[in-house]
Amino acid sequence: MPTKFVSEKNIKFLLYEVFDIESLTAYAYYQDHNRKTFDMVLKAAVKLAKDMLFPIFEEMDRNPPELVNGEVKVHPLVNSILREFGEGGWLTSRVPVEKDGEQLPHLLADCCDFIFQAANYSANAYAGLIVGAAHLIESFGSKALYDTYVPRMFEGKWQGTMALTEPEAGSSLSDITTMAEPTGEDYYSIKGQKIFISAGDHDGAENIVHLMLAKIVGAPPGVKGISLFVVPKKRIAPDGNLISNDVVASGVYHKLGYRGCPIVQLSIGDKNDCRGWLVGEPHNGLKYMFQMMNEARIGVGMGATSMATAAYYASLDYAKTRRQGRKVDQKDPTLPPVPIIEHADIKRMLLFQRAVIEGSLSIIMQCSKYVDLQKVSNEEDKEKYYLLLEILTPVAKSYPSEMGVISISQGLQCLGGSGYCDDYPLEQYFRDSRIHPIHEGTTGIQAMDLLGRKVTMKNGQAFMLYLAEVHQTISAAKEFSELSDPAQRLDNNLVRLEEVTKHLFDVAQKKGPEPFLADATLYLELFSIIAVAWQWLLQGIAVQKSLKNGAKKADLNFYQGKMFALKYFYNYELPKTLGLAERLFNNDGLTVEVQAEHFAD
Amino acid sequence: MPTKFVSEKNIKFLLYEVFDIESLTAYAYYQDHNRKTFDMVLKAAVKLAKDMLFPIFEEMDRNPPELVNGEVKVHPLVNSILREFGEGGWLTSRVPVEKDGEQLPHLLADCCDFIFQAANYSANAYAGLIVGAAHLIESFGSKALYDTYVPRMFEGKWQGTMALTEPEAGSSLSDITTMAEPTGEDYYSIKGQKIFISAGDHDGAENIVHLMLAKIVGAPPGVKGISLFVVPKKRIAPDGNLISNDVVASGVYHKLGYRGCPIVQLSIGDKNDCRGWLVGEPHNGLKYMFQMMNEARIGVGMGATSMATAAYYASLDYAKTRRQGRKVDQKDPTLPPVPIIEHADIKRMLLFQRAVIEGSLSIIMQCSKYVDLQKVSNEEDKEKYYLLLEILTPVAKSYPSEMGVISISQGLQCLGGSGYCDDYPLEQYFRDSRIHPIHEGTTGIQAMDLLGRKVTMKNGQAFMLYLAEVHQTISAAKEFSELSDPAQRLDNNLVRLEEVTKHLFDVAQKKGPEPFLADATLYLELFSIIAVAWQWLLQGIAVQKSLKNGAKKADLNFYQGKMFALKYFYNYELPKTLGLAERLFNNDGLTVEVQAEHFAD
Repeated sequence: MPTKFVSEKNIKFLLYEVFDIESLTAYAYYQDHNRKTFDMVLKAAVKLAKDMLFPIFEEMDRNPPELVNGEVKVHPLVNSILREFGEGGWLTSRVPVEKDGEQLPHLLADCCDFIFQAANYSANAYAGLIVGAAHLIESFGSKALYDTYVPRMFEGKWQGTMALTEPEAGSSLSDITTMAEPTGEDYYSIKGQKIFISAGDHDGAENIVHLMLAKIVGAPPGVKGISLFVVPKKRIAPDGNLISNDVVASGVYHKLGYRGCPIVQLSIGDKNDCRGWLVGEPHNGLKYMFQMMNEARIGVGMGATSMATAAYYASLDYAKTRRQGRKVDQKDPTLPPVPIIEHADIKRMLLFQRAVIEGSLSIIMQCSKYVDLQKVSNEEDKEKYYLLLEILTPVAKSYPSEMGVISISQGLQCLGGSGYCDDYPLEQYFRDSRIHPIHEGTTGIQAMDLLGRKVTMKNGQAFMLYLAEVHQTISAAKEFSELSDPAQRLDNNLVRLEEVTKHLFDVAQKKGPEPFLADATLYLELFSIIAVAWQWLLQGIAVQKSLKNGAKKADLNFYQGKMFALKYFYNYELPKTLGLAERLFNNDGLTVEVQAEHFAD
Repeated sequence: MPTKFVSEKNIKFLLYEVFDIESLTAYAYYQDHNRKTFDMVLKAAVKLAKDMLFPIFEEMDRNPPELVNGEVKVHPLVNSILREFGEGGWLTSRVPVEKDGEQLPHLLADCCDFIFQAANYSANAYAGLIVGAAHLIESFGSKALYDTYVPRMFEGKWQGTMALTEPEAGSSLSDITTMAEPTGEDYYSIKGQKIFISAGDHDGAENIVHLMLAKIVGAPPGVKGISLFVVPKKRIAPDGNLISNDVVASGVYHKLGYRGCPIVQLSIGDKNDCRGWLVGEPHNGLKYMFQMMNEARIGVGMGATSMATAAYYASLDYAKTRRQGRKVDQKDPTLPPVPIIEHADIKRMLLFQRAVIEGSLSIIMQCSKYVDLQKVSNEEDKEKYYLLLEILTPVAKSYPSEMGVISISQGLQCLGGSGYCDDYPLEQYFRDSRIHPIHEGTTGIQAMDLLGRKVTMKNGQAFMLYLAEVHQTISAAKEFSELSDPAQRLDNNLVRLEEVTKHLFDVAQKKGPEPFLADATLYLELFSIIAVAWQWLLQGIAVQKSLKNGAKKADLNFYQGKMFALKYFYNYELPKTLGLAERLFNNDGLTVEVQAEHFAD
């Protein structure tokens, strides 16, 4: 088994050289931190990941959760891991000091999650759900709800979940039928079914706190009638003991991968004894949930990046040590075989992986920085960063998810037949990663969100702000002769993106919403490739600055490697926008016109 | 579980309307057949597939082979299946009548394989290996070898294998170290190790007949020293009984998928008691083996297509029956949800799958027809079809393999979360299919074969013949106004392919073989997309002819669906050549220049 799953050097390069996390300490909110504390936190995260998470990465896959006597049994170490996350402060890293948190910049806290996810995505999923659910209660729930649930969640004793999906309502939340009936008390009576609930039940936590969408009896139809409730698996009885709250795990899915974390089917209120506590105002549930959902979407992008990163290092390790064949210009069979990393096609597959994963990590950290800036900025800037986050969230979710699967597939390919066998971890990464284009909104949903909502929101203001950000990077890059070519090409691509966007708006006006959105997935891909090209240019600037300022000799290979990956992205990935743009300009409504009967034979 | 895994209608469309299999009956060799017998054979194949193979598709995956007491245990029905294949004449469908075969056109026999593979790829793999190994003995072995082995193989009692790969020689066969020592008798003493041998040992057959590459002591180094041997698991003792031949299954791999068929590790001659019989002349082994390998490569392409086809029908079934959400222009939440096949993005994913699988099947059947024509033609034409097969084999192997994985992934995506769970077969197809870009020569190997060998062979004659074939189709298509646009675009693409090819030859001359071949994989992709576009145009011609001749009303949806799939290929897939060509023209040697140390950090 390879032992490396992340590059601390790359994380530090992004944190300090690209995103200048130290600049955040100029703001009062982050003034108590400095590079030294950041380094310490990173070191501790790597240690936890290496000591506790990575060693059971494979074991958790081979021993998936099972439903036994109405409870989901998970790996015995899940309990210890959650307690360790709680005690180590990892669940409260983004929580303000006044609420007993560490008040770390998101930029750093997200990097820690990245490290944990790269070591063991399933193990970290439990923790991520606690953090998101607690944040939701903190943001919109009453003090009583906070005091009842959040402290125990932050200790790692109580699991949090997001309970949205139902048998007849997957991507279409307006159709949920879980009902909440007022009782005259401070709680509602809840009844319904939920499916695909990650960590929806397990014996690694003392209680499960569902952040659940339901409709109050008599609520308006559609998404406008959705409310948010806290629905615990066990509620606190008057005597202070935990008693059953009539939330029953009725099934656990057998999945392709991501097997260390259970995905559960829930029956709620079968005995008419399930109580749920309203979060915030009635009928505002979806709006609230979108906070957790947006965080979770960027989290999925991060998770996808982390798996592909671990897979990259596993394939790199193999490529460096496995000897096979000779270079194409050296056919003498009596010479010893060379390490396969000397073959151009293997180097291509490694560069491809690196271009994808380091580009993906960069776009996600860009989002993390916007979250931080949003937190510390004045009102006008808050709005700016809010809009930038809105437009980049579908990109940060879907590009790493879609490309992560392909990147891992290329990593597997580097190993040949060994990649297909479970003696190496590539096959697991391949299975695990396939969840990402699905959960927290499929790629198709992200695409409709980007083109149908985000690009047009507030008269295109988010889109304009985004273009301005990229233009700023292009201007900065033009100061370095080594970057003038990619800068120019990014500029050209931005112009084309605007043209494509205008063309699609034309289609919307002339032909209506269906033809407008029919190729949204291709638009998302086009948009994303350009966004990641932007991130590579940003990294290129940091590299050139460091080289100009006399980088250490020990770092030269790293910086040169970065430039190779940048060039790979611009020379192999960016040209894909040509075909995408051609298709998007040719909006012939093909997928609208074709009908179900044409698939019959 | 969906029940449909192939479309007989599409197979017949390709057989009769596109490739005109009936024209083959004009040749003496096939004169005893007619459409009626072809239909009967197809019907019988579908029946066998439905009754015997498809029902245990999932079961074989869930109960993978295990090594027990030195023998690999497989699903108990493997034995019955092989006997059924033997008794039904499926193993001898391509064998001449004079050798007790059915003498069917390859075009038809390959379609039967396609049906079997779509029903259960693993189950058919055993049979495919018997057929290939027997054909190898028939082609190059002595009569004594034939009489000893082939009849029992054709009865389905003895398994055949191709035993090439070794621990230190995967893609690089020149490094094999399995040795053959002359004994003074009619056999050699064999000693070595083989890995990744499909069906390399199992209890479903009475004996295993390895077609094994080894080097005779004192042979020249490299591929020129490789000979081919028949090495049975059990040899026939003087008393006629089968006794151990010192070929031991030392391991069975645990794989991502393709679990119904064991991939085995073999120790040969550990007790110095393994006998192997030379096939043909010494040192010509690799040349002989390439017959089986080329057949196997096209077989892999067919297998990849078949899996993706079954996955397509499973996702189509789901898309037609699953209701979710409303059309984008109809947001009234009180209306019932629509079947998801009404969403444009789902239709896009279905059209994509169809464009890939029906294009892939077509290119493979094109190869099958060349095999048939090669068989019945005069010497000059034989050479022509031989060259066409040579140049198309890497395409027919790799395009369906690479695109099959992506096609299945899109099929899985249509099911959302359900696609990730094993209640539906998509996750198994996704796992199973990932073997195809690896076995029988990875995609990288196919790419080097195409650009480094096939395009240049005989002064580019194969390439010229191929271009002529495509031009012929373009001319024929131009007679139909509905096809003039795709015909013109295919023409343009062909011009660009020639330009790219010339440019790469220039690179070869000026910079040598390494930069020339560095992007061979992209060249293969470019070449393949154009080849499949050709096949779609060929299908378009057949559709237009049928529509012109007054197609039955019941067939109109099928033909219209074909035209939608054709347009999909031309409007979504063909534009990908733009980015590929841009990259290939920009041959900057990036992946040659980057070195192992640049990946260090």
